[in-house]
Amino acid sequence: MSHPIITDLEKRYTTKNYDATQRIPTADLEVIYEALRLSASSINSQPWKFVVIESDEAKQRFHDSFVNKHQFNQKHAKAASHIILFAHKTHYKRDDYAKVVDKGIEDGRTAPADRESAFGGFAFAELNTKADGNTEAWTKAQTYLALGNLLHTLARLGIDSTPLEGVDPEMLSELFKDELAGYKCEVGLAMGYRHQEEDYNATIPKSRLAREQILTVL
Amino acid sequence: MSHPIITDLEKRYTTKNYDATQRIPTADLEVIYEALRLSASSINSQPWKFVVIESDEAKQRFHDSFVNKHQFNQKHAKAASHIILFAHKTHYKRDDYAKVVDKGIEDGRTAPADRESAFGGFAFAELNTKADGNTEAWTKAQTYLALGNLLHTLARLGIDSTPLEGVDPEMLSELFKDELAGYKCEVGLAMGYRHQEEDYNATIPKSRLAREQILTVL
Repeated sequence: MSHPIITDLEKRYTTKNYDATQRIPTADLEVIYEALRLSASSINSQPWKFVVIESDEAKQRFHDSFVNKHQFNQKHAKAASHIILFAHKTHYKRDDYAKVVDKGIEDGRTAPADRESAFGGFAFAELNTKADGNTEAWTKAQTYLALGNLLHTLARLGIDSTPLEGVDPEMLSELFKDELAGYKCEVGLAMGYRHQEEDYNATIPKSRLAREQILTVL
Repeated sequence: MSHPIITDLEKRYTTKNYDATQRIPTADLEVIYEALRLSASSINSQPWKFVVIESDEAKQRFHDSFVNKHQFNQKHAKAASHIILFAHKTHYKRDDYAKVVDKGIEDGRTAPADRESAFGGFAFAELNTKADGNTEAWTKAQTYLALGNLLHTLARLGIDSTPLEGVDPEMLSELFKDELAGYKCEVGLAMGYRHQEEDYNATIPKSRLAREQILTVL
């Protein structure tokens, strides 16, 4: 199939080795941050924090978070241009949704007089809240929407990337305590440019299950 | 910010009323299906089934699935051009990954002699498997990657859409028993074209939290 969207998606792949000398230009970073911000989420809940690791100091901290597990991903901490931690709120509450409602008023989406009725959507958050107040199954899923959106965005920008479920949530919550502010990070994304000689995954064919194995039209 | 990616993401929104007379052209459907197939997933697990509701018969079944709950979404069943059910495998096993490995061999990604070592990534699935064999927290998240990718794809195609967490997994598992084949659907996506007069959400401003509320650069 020949289509610009398919061309973009066919060329993206999981980078296994980065060229540590290359950095993402500022203009592209601005697109990345805005694309993340514009990501869709259930009831527009936006139950996330994105922590971008850019400085050498932050990269050292991310590097150190691999002390206990997933060491195969540690090399990306310093070789990738940037890493984004995708963190979700584990206990999403009415106060969190109030920020969304009030931003809606500020943006002219909701009339101030309709503030109370704008909380109607929050019933959906309640449906996804366990007896102990935990909303993780729901809020974590939303961060994957943002991640899927960003992977597509990066493909369009010609920037390489590596989704990192192989991170250590406990170590991250210690080493990035202030920045995560209680949000939980179970997935990250390394971004940058592939190493031209040392990325075996850049040259072998992409593989996906056949359409008939995963999709049915009724 | 002026950038084609941002323009696409700013124009997409959650459609609240569809024009029932418009249908997505076949060429666009082909792009949609291929974009879904190419979606990224952890260890390339692809733990999903996409059931596309296109015929009147299937739309009636989807319509009927709202008998118990989320009736506000029922109208999309017949007015949207197509609905996709995103279903995940609740108990992802080595046999499932074997299909991925064998397709990798077929696609020339893995040499036949390396078949056994290609199962190395499955350790990651095991890490995400609970004592009772349940992998839902992990596999469901992957379907949101595909959904995030598809929302971006549809924005580029100029096709409107509505994510539907408001579906009834139990009724769907009954009414689409054969097609879901034991996979669980907790989210769908309606797609089509907005009703030009009756979609209030098409004309009010999009709203998102400010960048400083959700993103930190270290």
